[in-house]
Amino acid sequence: MPNHSFDAGLLNPLSHGTRESELTSDQAWLQAMVDAELALSRALVDAGLAPEWMLTVCDQLADASQFDLGAIALEARGGGNPVIPFVKHLGRAAESVRAGASDHIHVGATSQDILDTAAMIVARRVTRELIDQLDALGGILADLAEQHRGTVMSGRTLGQQASPTSFGFVAAGWLDAVLLILTRLDGIAETLPVQLGGAVGNLAVLTEIARARRSDAPAADVLDTILERFAHHVGLAVPRLSWHTNRVVISELASVLAAATGVAGTFALDVSVLSRTEIAEVSERLAPGQGGSSAMPHKRNPVSAVLITAAALQTPGLASTLYGSMLAEDQRPSGAWHAEWQSLRVLERLTISAVTGAASLAARLDVDPDRMRANLDLTDGLVFSERVTTILAETVGKTTAFALVERAAQEAFVTNRPLQVVLASMLIAEGCSDALRAEVWAAFNYEGESGQSAAGIDRVVQSFRRRAAVSDRGAIVEERTQSNNDVRIS
Amino acid sequence: MPNHSFDAGLLNPLSHGTRESELTSDQAWLQAMVDAELALSRALVDAGLAPEWMLTVCDQLADASQFDLGAIALEARGGGNPVIPFVKHLGRAAESVRAGASDHIHVGATSQDILDTAAMIVARRVTRELIDQLDALGGILADLAEQHRGTVMSGRTLGQQASPTSFGFVAAGWLDAVLLILTRLDGIAETLPVQLGGAVGNLAVLTEIARARRSDAPAADVLDTILERFAHHVGLAVPRLSWHTNRVVISELASVLAAATGVAGTFALDVSVLSRTEIAEVSERLAPGQGGSSAMPHKRNPVSAVLITAAALQTPGLASTLYGSMLAEDQRPSGAWHAEWQSLRVLERLTISAVTGAASLAARLDVDPDRMRANLDLTDGLVFSERVTTILAETVGKTTAFALVERAAQEAFVTNRPLQVVLASMLIAEGCSDALRAEVWAAFNYEGESGQSAAGIDRVVQSFRRRAAVSDRGAIVEERTQSNNDVRIS
Amino acid sequence: MPNHSFDAGLLNPLSHGTRESELTSDQAWLQAMVDAELALSRALVDAGLAPEWMLTVCDQLADASQFDLGAIALEARGGGNPVIPFVKHLGRAAESVRAGASDHIHVGATSQDILDTAAMIVARRVTRELIDQLDALGGILADLAEQHRGTVMSGRTLGQQASPTSFGFVAAGWLDAVLLILTRLDGIAETLPVQLGGAVGNLAVLTEIARARRSDAPAADVLDTILERFAHHVGLAVPRLSWHTNRVVISELASVLAAATGVAGTFALDVSVLSRTEIAEVSERLAPGQGGSSAMPHKRNPVSAVLITAAALQTPGLASTLYGSMLAEDQRPSGAWHAEWQSLRVLERLTISAVTGAASLAARLDVDPDRMRANLDLTDGLVFSERVTTILAETVGKTTAFALVERAAQEAFVTNRPLQVVLASMLIAEGCSDALRAEVWAAFNYEGESGQSAAGIDRVVQSFRRRAAVSDRGAIVEERTQSNNDVRIS
Amino acid sequence: MPNHSFDAGLLNPLSHGTRESELTSDQAWLQAMVDAELALSRALVDAGLAPEWMLTVCDQLADASQFDLGAIALEARGGGNPVIPFVKHLGRAAESVRAGASDHIHVGATSQDILDTAAMIVARRVTRELIDQLDALGGILADLAEQHRGTVMSGRTLGQQASPTSFGFVAAGWLDAVLLILTRLDGIAETLPVQLGGAVGNLAVLTEIARARRSDAPAADVLDTILERFAHHVGLAVPRLSWHTNRVVISELASVLAAATGVAGTFALDVSVLSRTEIAEVSERLAPGQGGSSAMPHKRNPVSAVLITAAALQTPGLASTLYGSMLAEDQRPSGAWHAEWQSLRVLERLTISAVTGAASLAARLDVDPDRMRANLDLTDGLVFSERVTTILAETVGKTTAFALVERAAQEAFVTNRPLQVVLASMLIAEGCSDALRAEVWAAFNYEGESGQSAAGIDRVVQSFRRRAAVSDRGAIVEERTQSNNDVRIS
Repeated sequence: MPNHSFDAGLLNPLSHGTRESELTSDQAWLQAMVDAELALSRALVDAGLAPEWMLTVCDQLADASQFDLGAIALEARGGGNPVIPFVKHLGRAAESVRAGASDHIHVGATSQDILDTAAMIVARRVTRELIDQLDALGGILADLAEQHRGTVMSGRTLGQQASPTSFGFVAAGWLDAVLLILTRLDGIAETLPVQLGGAVGNLAVLTEIARARRSDAPAADVLDTILERFAHHVGLAVPRLSWHTNRVVISELASVLAAATGVAGTFALDVSVLSRTEIAEVSERLAPGQGGSSAMPHKRNPVSAVLITAAALQTPGLASTLYGSMLAEDQRPSGAWHAEWQSLRVLERLTISAVTGAASLAARLDVDPDRMRANLDLTDGLVFSERVTTILAETVGKTTAFALVERAAQEAFVTNRPLQVVLASMLIAEGCSDALRAEVWAAFNYEGESGQSAAGIDRVVQSFRRRAAVSDRGAIVEERTQSNNDVRIS
Repeated sequence: MPNHSFDAGLLNPLSHGTRESELTSDQAWLQAMVDAELALSRALVDAGLAPEWMLTVCDQLADASQFDLGAIALEARGGGNPVIPFVKHLGRAAESVRAGASDHIHVGATSQDILDTAAMIVARRVTRELIDQLDALGGILADLAEQHRGTVMSGRTLGQQASPTSFGFVAAGWLDAVLLILTRLDGIAETLPVQLGGAVGNLAVLTEIARARRSDAPAADVLDTILERFAHHVGLAVPRLSWHTNRVVISELASVLAAATGVAGTFALDVSVLSRTEIAEVSERLAPGQGGSSAMPHKRNPVSAVLITAAALQTPGLASTLYGSMLAEDQRPSGAWHAEWQSLRVLERLTISAVTGAASLAARLDVDPDRMRANLDLTDGLVFSERVTTILAETVGKTTAFALVERAAQEAFVTNRPLQVVLASMLIAEGCSDALRAEVWAAFNYEGESGQSAAGIDRVVQSFRRRAAVSDRGAIVEERTQSNNDVRIS
Repeated sequence: MPNHSFDAGLLNPLSHGTRESELTSDQAWLQAMVDAELALSRALVDAGLAPEWMLTVCDQLADASQFDLGAIALEARGGGNPVIPFVKHLGRAAESVRAGASDHIHVGATSQDILDTAAMIVARRVTRELIDQLDALGGILADLAEQHRGTVMSGRTLGQQASPTSFGFVAAGWLDAVLLILTRLDGIAETLPVQLGGAVGNLAVLTEIARARRSDAPAADVLDTILERFAHHVGLAVPRLSWHTNRVVISELASVLAAATGVAGTFALDVSVLSRTEIAEVSERLAPGQGGSSAMPHKRNPVSAVLITAAALQTPGLASTLYGSMLAEDQRPSGAWHAEWQSLRVLERLTISAVTGAASLAARLDVDPDRMRANLDLTDGLVFSERVTTILAETVGKTTAFALVERAAQEAFVTNRPLQVVLASMLIAEGCSDALRAEVWAAFNYEGESGQSAAGIDRVVQSFRRRAAVSDRGAIVEERTQSNNDVRIS
Repeated sequence: MPNHSFDAGLLNPLSHGTRESELTSDQAWLQAMVDAELALSRALVDAGLAPEWMLTVCDQLADASQFDLGAIALEARGGGNPVIPFVKHLGRAAESVRAGASDHIHVGATSQDILDTAAMIVARRVTRELIDQLDALGGILADLAEQHRGTVMSGRTLGQQASPTSFGFVAAGWLDAVLLILTRLDGIAETLPVQLGGAVGNLAVLTEIARARRSDAPAADVLDTILERFAHHVGLAVPRLSWHTNRVVISELASVLAAATGVAGTFALDVSVLSRTEIAEVSERLAPGQGGSSAMPHKRNPVSAVLITAAALQTPGLASTLYGSMLAEDQRPSGAWHAEWQSLRVLERLTISAVTGAASLAARLDVDPDRMRANLDLTDGLVFSERVTTILAETVGKTTAFALVERAAQEAFVTNRPLQVVLASMLIAEGCSDALRAEVWAAFNYEGESGQSAAGIDRVVQSFRRRAAVSDRGAIVEERTQSNNDVRIS
């Protein structure tokens, strides 16, 4: 293999030597192609269309590392997809195990059946890994939300300090997004379908063979058995129809992957912002050797946050390619299908990178409540403008109150005085009651509950914990999943 | 209003004067903003935080056509969003109905609460329209699938005739995609949430007010009431948390819209291909004045198919913008939120155009079974190569059979003779049995069932009809929906 | 015209009532279509293929406001593009001016000739407006760069303070990007071509007519005259060939538009960041009514910066649609061409919005040198780490120096002491010379020149000013342009 | 190196073992990073800031294969980019050649200086390869255009036969697009700039060092020397300013790459369409083993056309990511820069694949003039509708002629008779002159010149050949280029 065909992850620092590379590498795809082909051969045996000894042959062919990945990749140019040469390599290997075995490989299948099924096998592993990583991320965020329930910080809108909130509430917001993605992923992971349609999707060859070899049963029943066993062997669902040019499955997968990086990316972006030298409310705890610069000895960069953000900036374009590939004409399109493979793989890889990175980042997040408090003081009370407006509105009405505080805020800004002081003078001038002035004066403190922060935190954390409790009954779920694999998507 | 601000749909021929324009116009958005603000005012009354007379005021403010859309749009530049000037216009109108009424408008809300809720109101109407149109499209496709169950046509892969299939099976494939989108849309349409968080998402102001005005009840309960009534009045769901910067809701919506145009677009693209002069297996029935050319008097263009395809080519880029906008920092981002509005609106408009257009196209689709049959003859039997390989494989094994037919096909191609004839000579030369030769010779006919076409058609059509049967119990579903609106998304 | 077809700019606050709406409105497109058709009719007269009196007819048809935009938009559905109905409306209007006039309209043209030429007419106006606005933006940035040549501020990388730079140098960086775009735009604006090919691009009809009506001249010469006069009348260039399916022209235009918003967006994003409450080094000077919030009376949002950023977030997706539309099969594609219109228009509109907004923002930018200086102090000297490393490296070598300062920075960070002090102790401990210690101690000041800031500023500002000087000779340039319009792009 | 980090090109069949993999592999990037670092060290020697012996050290470090790519990729996670660990590896290697050598490596540079310069080195090689391949493609297309000047075929619009054209004219259209890209690429290839700015872009460290070590010369002059020699050693241009966050350079490069795949993709898409079984006007000459199917022995797929199209479907999304990455805040952004690397590399790789594939496809294109002629007959004369309308218009006026032929075409379509015959009857009925009827009758032939096909072909082919003639004076151009490298981009 020439050195230059070797992409080690130099340009994707999050990916090298990681689980996402392992799950989405060429080697992983080749293994999935092996799994798909052998599942089909086994299903033929199960359905009585191939001899029992084929199972032993399958066992010996199961490890993809025996195949020459480089050669297959090279030969893929000829037919336009890697399955065409792979089937030849697999056939030769089968013959070397037992003469005649190649006759029971790739029977009734077209290249797309194998590559799409392999894509779904890879996707199943990817979605499971994502669920695990999102569970981990969610757990840490839930803890942060609860621990920092009372950690007052400035809420910021359009980059400006707006009103007080709590860091726990901000963390609950991140968690809520994670939970939405988890719910969606759970649904998708269980319904990823096999592909099996033959040349033009109608399983004509397998029908022919079923008639020839199983005169004892209706062909339709034999085919149902094949499909169900095929799906069983690879742990996927049975679709209503072959989906060679109905790419909703791919677009759904793309959509949840892109959304997951979006969620991880938003969290990372918030960490980047809150880590800024001038804000410094959170920081990424760095291991030795992490976060440095090649030029500046003092730098402590939020490097995970940056790389997650970078991943999230790359995924929308990839998702758009996969949406564009839905325009698949005929029974197999002239390019749209081929455009999916790399885009999907890179999207999957970036998503795992982003989500895994986010879980790691959350676990290494240092929070500085003192700095949060100190930053709130920067506006000399302006962040309380909404609260005092509300108090005044109870007496003078909302419109008058808003105008009054707006004027006071303007004066405070221009004269560089605290809003609390400016407003007090104004209220005296306006002849407002002592009680109201006292109430307004007292409102300038950070202690009061921040609206529905606590209730919101509880609601999200409890929803997440309920889900986690269900997922923890792992064995049961797993069992259910296995049996469900045999059921058609309805 | 200057003439030049007026976009009539000149550049989007599918949209002018149509339901999608109506549902997604500036006027529709303004109405939704009115709906959102008044729902909030009404919810305040329901929760005991505003006087009963406010309901009458709301009734009089309910029609958006009384507001000056152009002025609001113009003033939107100042604050960066249309809600800021709109609240002022609404407040003035409220005061003119009854003095003091403006104090009960926009209470505790931030601009994003209103615009996001308005976006969801629009989205709710859009998704319902889409469901109706997809139901219509599905119904026609189901009929086509059943009627053309036995209409033999060539399956095509990479632009080349591959193996026989039936037009009914092809239609069932389109239907299956429609059904997948419908299922997803059903789920999304019911869970579109209101937005209500106040300045930084924690409902601080409403909490404050609830404490001041409803000392009789815990603030949390009062807030729950407000949220539930707010959602009830606009027919949306209650979210777990405000989602100002958790944009999974938007990305989910974008994903199903882009997928729906993809599904409509694939259908349209197939119609374009099958309508080609040289293929001519289907054609779009044109009304007078449709499908013409400005240069060529004879042209009968598949104009709906073309415009639907054009819509589907525009949606992936819009979806990518909405995925990119998930990167929303702070409690309201400096641009990402603002980038959503137009992209979402145009995406919604194009999706309705595409889906509505597809339903219309399906209803006007002329199918030419004779031409389908004639085209199959073009390859002089090559389309049967897979079938005869299968037959031969039963005797000589798959590998040998494939090689044999490949050689025969090559010779047929080079010598320009029918594969049936070439193969017959070859089988004699190979000393094959008379019976097998006869079976191979007989395989060159289009009458046999095309694999599992029939079973596949039945499966998809029945699934679609079952769904339709459920949807037809419209009143019941609608009722359930209304009560569900009060329930939090879990 | 129903109210609901009316998009006033509610969802695009930068655009309402502005030059970009005017330049890219449906009305502007219709006018450009009129211009294109009449230019063709006039060119026919110029080439002797139509009677002289047709010029008078053209004069009377020149104002697009006489045509019913709404009706044309509505009828566009039938043929799939607005030109087909427009030609009918135009023909009727021509007949009402003089019987027989419609025979000299749209002669030899296909719909795409007119719409593509109209698109280029619009694009020409758009690019000129962009050049004007970028010139204005550049002028302000050049002034900022020179005025703030010595205004020290912190350079920031990955959100962290890195090393000192000057605000003037930062402004020069923005200017350099503006200048690159201007150079590219100048090139593109002058070469935007007309489209004229007839039904399949080969001008068959006009050739036929030239032969019939101008037996005195070779058809090729007559056609050259038509093309040159056609281009002259609309102020565009003559292409080598009709470009119905060669969409490099569109992709080039899209690329410079997207790049221009990127440049404006980066500037705006920097302003957003530097405006953050905790950084506050620059602020957007707001007019009364600008930058407010509907919830918080004190808010002063960098609203232009936010809206420019929002525009820049929308353009990459639109550009990708236009790149995707390059895949234009046959002599006119089944959707790819139709997908361009809206995407190009919205892209143009957003680009003008972004660039115009940036010029306005630059003109209203308040710079706070004191705050810049104060923020530099926040790191207690860490921003000098690179500088002192450089000084130490001269004596102890780069590697040792980097390690030493890295250790000192770490200790300063942990012990919360100034780097200057920590490093001084360390250097004593290391036994370093008094002179070196003194030099290192003295390096902790902001006064020294910031590297090549000044030279860089001069280089960029001078390049910009040279260009501006050339452009100022407006009349001459304009004249040259007019005559150039007649020349083929080579 | 674990097997799973190894991407062999399995999912990108065009790329394995090819020049594009070689030019854009991790290994190629690492070599470019080595080239960049050593060019900087050599420039320091040239400018008198480093000892002469450093040149010998550089010579020994020049081969990137001595560095552990896998280890560098792995360590890249820590700092967020591969340069940080690479500099350490390079420094150790330098020390092992000569003690103290590492002090003269990476002097004054920041990671981005090296990675951006490496990116430009890779881009320079990529653009040169693209120019070579486009030259090759253009040469073949020029030959096709000339050879098939008189090969009549049907022009098609919206998938329908429209009017006759020639295959040579179609090929000239492909060539024209290639020529536009070549012109643009020539410009870009010569101006790709080095990056050198130091930590925050102002070259502060090198200025400091120049002052310390070259008291004999103004620092600005020394820096100019460094920049010019740095650029000279890597064969790139000198920018006006460092462009760390001014990413116009990257967006320009992305735009021409995406446009080049668009051009290759359009050609491929046309080949796919014209290769359809029912059209069969061209075919891709296949090598043994090419174009086959895993299921259908007879298949001869246009596999290159399909894979080129697939590449072109992937590039718009990647380009949009790179446009999005223009939004680079501060002096180095928190993610936008990092998002460029992979996207740019994949875009470059796909572009070379597409363009190289297109050159190969053009060279293997079989054209079938007989079939083109036969297909024209399919419409029974309808393709002549525009021509006969033109003839009739000379006598009865355009409007009447159009209506007449439209009616005839409609009748021909409905009655399934040739337009020639139907029209003849109609003209008799209309009482038209014998001469005119004869002229109309005679127009139904394919022999006449197809409009300006010939002139258009000549114009484009000559433009291409002129360019090629210039390029052939390779040595001279190359020389000029080398000296130009020292010149600033103005």
